[in-house]
Amino acid sequence: MVTHEPGGTELGARLRRLLLGIGEAPVGARAEALLMAADRAQHFDEVVLPSLGDGRHVVSDRTAFSSLAYQGGGRGLGVETVRGLNEFATRGRWPDAVVLLEVSSSVARDRLGRVLDRLEREDLDFHETVTETFDRLAETDTASRWHRIDASGPLGDVAELVWAAVADLFPGVS
Amino acid sequence: MVTHEPGGTELGARLRRLLLGIGEAPVGARAEALLMAADRAQHFDEVVLPSLGDGRHVVSDRTAFSSLAYQGGGRGLGVETVRGLNEFATRGRWPDAVVLLEVSSSVARDRLGRVLDRLEREDLDFHETVTETFDRLAETDTASRWHRIDASGPLGDVAELVWAAVADLFPGVS
Repeated sequence: MVTHEPGGTELGARLRRLLLGIGEAPVGARAEALLMAADRAQHFDEVVLPSLGDGRHVVSDRTAFSSLAYQGGGRGLGVETVRGLNEFATRGRWPDAVVLLEVSSSVARDRLGRVLDRLEREDLDFHETVTETFDRLAETDTASRWHRIDASGPLGDVAELVWAAVADLFPGVS
Repeated sequence: MVTHEPGGTELGARLRRLLLGIGEAPVGARAEALLMAADRAQHFDEVVLPSLGDGRHVVSDRTAFSSLAYQGGGRGLGVETVRGLNEFATRGRWPDAVVLLEVSSSVARDRLGRVLDRLEREDLDFHETVTETFDRLAETDTASRWHRIDASGPLGDVAELVWAAVADLFPGVS
C-alpha cells in the first residue's frame, strides 16, 4: 500500500485544501499540530491499520516524525509533546523503518515549485530547526530504524540507494 | 466576550463547515477528538486568552468539557485521554465556572431542529453515555465550579436561574 500524509483520506484531502486555501486567516502552532494529528488519525484508521491487518506493507510519504520535526521542532511545541499527540493518533504504532532523504538547503530550494505552501514559506531559522530535529531523531529515536539517504543525485540514483537500504524488509521482491 | 465552540474563529468556522458538509466520508473517533481540539486551540489563541489578558470575562457556549463528554464518554476514547489533548489545546486553562443546562431527552428532542448534525444523529446509547459523563464531571471535576441548571422551563426562567448561579462572578453587574 503506497500512501501519503497529509491528505491520504477524504477527510485529510479536505483538511489539506482547507489549510492551503485559508489565505491570511490565522492558524496557531497548536491548532496546526492538532490538525496534522487529526489527518494522521484518520489515515491510520482508514488506510494504514487495515492494510497492516491484511498483511500488507505500507509505504507512506511522510509519517508522524514529520510532525515531530515541523511542529515539535520548527514551531517550538516540543518533540515529546507532539510525540504524545501522535501516539494517540496512531494508537502507538510507529514505522519499522524511516527513510530520511537529505539534501542541502540550496538543492531543496531549487527542487521546490514556485507555489510554496504554508510550511515551505517559513523562514530559514524555521527550516534549520526542522533539519536539526530530523537529525536528532535519526540519531536517537529508538521506535524506528532510520536510514539517512544522500538525495542530492538524480532520481534513479536516489531510488537505488533507498532500495539498497530497505530491500531486506521485502524478502522475495527484487 | 461572548463566544462559542466549535466555530468561534475563521479556522474553526471552516472546520465546522467541513465536518457538517462531509456527508458519508468517514471521520473516526480519534480524528473527531483532534479536530475539536484544533478548533479549541485556535479559539484559545485567537479569542479566549487575549480577552482574558485584557481583563475581560469570557462566556463561551460550550467548552472543553463537551469534548470530554462527547469524545471521551460518547465515543469511548476515555475522559482522561481527551482531557490530555485539551490541556494541550487550552494551555491548561479551564473555566472558572461551568453552567450545565439539564433537560430530559424528550424535551431535548423537541427543541432540536429537523436538520441534525453528525453528533445529534447518534443513537440513544451514545447520548445516554454523554449525559452520564457530564453528570460524573459535574459531581467530581475540581478544575471548575459546576452549576447544574433545570433548563426545562421557558427561556426567561432558565436565564434567571443561570444569572442567580453566576452573578457573584460579575460584581457590579445587575
